[in-house]
Amino acid sequence: MSYPQNHHGYSYGVPPPSQQSYTASYGVAPPPNNNYGSPLAALVPSTFPPGTDPNVIACFQVADIDGSGRIDDKELQRALSSYNQSFSIRTVRLLMYLFTNTNTRHIGPKEFTQVFYSLQNWRANFEKFDRDRSGRIDTWELREALMSLGFAVSHMVLDLLVSKYDKSGGPNKAIDYDNFIECCLIVKGLTEKFKEKDITYSGIATFTYESFMLTVLPFLIV
Amino acid sequence: MSYPQNHHGYSYGVPPPSQQSYTASYGVAPPPNNNYGSPLAALVPSTFPPGTDPNVIACFQVADIDGSGRIDDKELQRALSSYNQSFSIRTVRLLMYLFTNTNTRHIGPKEFTQVFYSLQNWRANFEKFDRDRSGRIDTWELREALMSLGFAVSHMVLDLLVSKYDKSGGPNKAIDYDNFIECCLIVKGLTEKFKEKDITYSGIATFTYESFMLTVLPFLIV
Repeated sequence: MSYPQNHHGYSYGVPPPSQQSYTASYGVAPPPNNNYGSPLAALVPSTFPPGTDPNVIACFQVADIDGSGRIDDKELQRALSSYNQSFSIRTVRLLMYLFTNTNTRHIGPKEFTQVFYSLQNWRANFEKFDRDRSGRIDTWELREALMSLGFAVSHMVLDLLVSKYDKSGGPNKAIDYDNFIECCLIVKGLTEKFKEKDITYSGIATFTYESFMLTVLPFLIV
Repeated sequence: MSYPQNHHGYSYGVPPPSQQSYTASYGVAPPPNNNYGSPLAALVPSTFPPGTDPNVIACFQVADIDGSGRIDDKELQRALSSYNQSFSIRTVRLLMYLFTNTNTRHIGPKEFTQVFYSLQNWRANFEKFDRDRSGRIDTWELREALMSLGFAVSHMVLDLLVSKYDKSGGPNKAIDYDNFIECCLIVKGLTEKFKEKDITYSGIATFTYESFMLTVLPFLIV
């Protein structure tokens, strides 16, 4: 099996990225061109993409208690928990930030669908590489899992992730499912932000002080 | 009163930074050249700098229950709480990371002294700008407080910080003392990391993907 990657240690596809290369790199369908980032985008509820699984729509409708067409961070946390997945409010807000690219605390049907399919994809990935069904994956398994999602990160980055997220404190460091999702989110999010600044696809990105602060802060204070 | 800053929106002093310009920029004395960042540095307990206030030494000794010469994250949290300052374990670990520049969960006398004086300085700063003694400072007061510590951040960054850390949810957004400390830590830490990459002092920093990940990740997963 070959993994999409380049010598810079992360996956790009070719510029401009086609939907195919985006999907290969990030394991999810690319977001449509829908004015993400516009302050108004968060105010207009989106709609379900054509062909959305009725189960996803049903799940959204259960979560959307007040029928507003949008669900907030706590509703999303509750909805995800009902699928036997326990996420901290921090992870949920990180999910919302990365799938809307705004600081909104609400998401609409379209973003919910993206979150749903991404989590499904990441869950399958986690189970594939958790070969002994221990509910935890170690550094090497995390490496393989991230690689198959299109993210080729170095041993140093992997070691940092696993040593920080390991809850056992023992010598055999590993991470469990909810922290694996946070790893996927952080790696996906930072890689995408880096790519936005690496306009020549050289593996090197240039930031002004302002753009550096505005890029990094939303990850720190979700 | 004039504040040290340049047109890029953050303070540099002049290269190479003298102790004076460092102090002007960051509000704390510069760390001595003591192999911070070396994997071995965390294993060798430091010593108190000459002339350290005996109260600081006494405070360290109370915190260092096992007399190991180092105190860990929970001990530091307890020690800081006894000064009527409540910090989350995340804030404490961020403190430890920024004052050692390693992922260690222990600090020695030297780093403890730096943490102590920095917090004292930041506390005085908070009280100075919390003019109505409400225990909270708003966006404009935060701007002034960060400016007087040598950090000139934009309105966009200030708005992001205050809107994220505001706990009231009301229209008059403001942050309380413990979140002010986290703001100081994050702004100080990110500014220093940015400066390390802005080798020509131009206000523009260049990162490889690897260096970007290794710069940002320690802030995210303390």
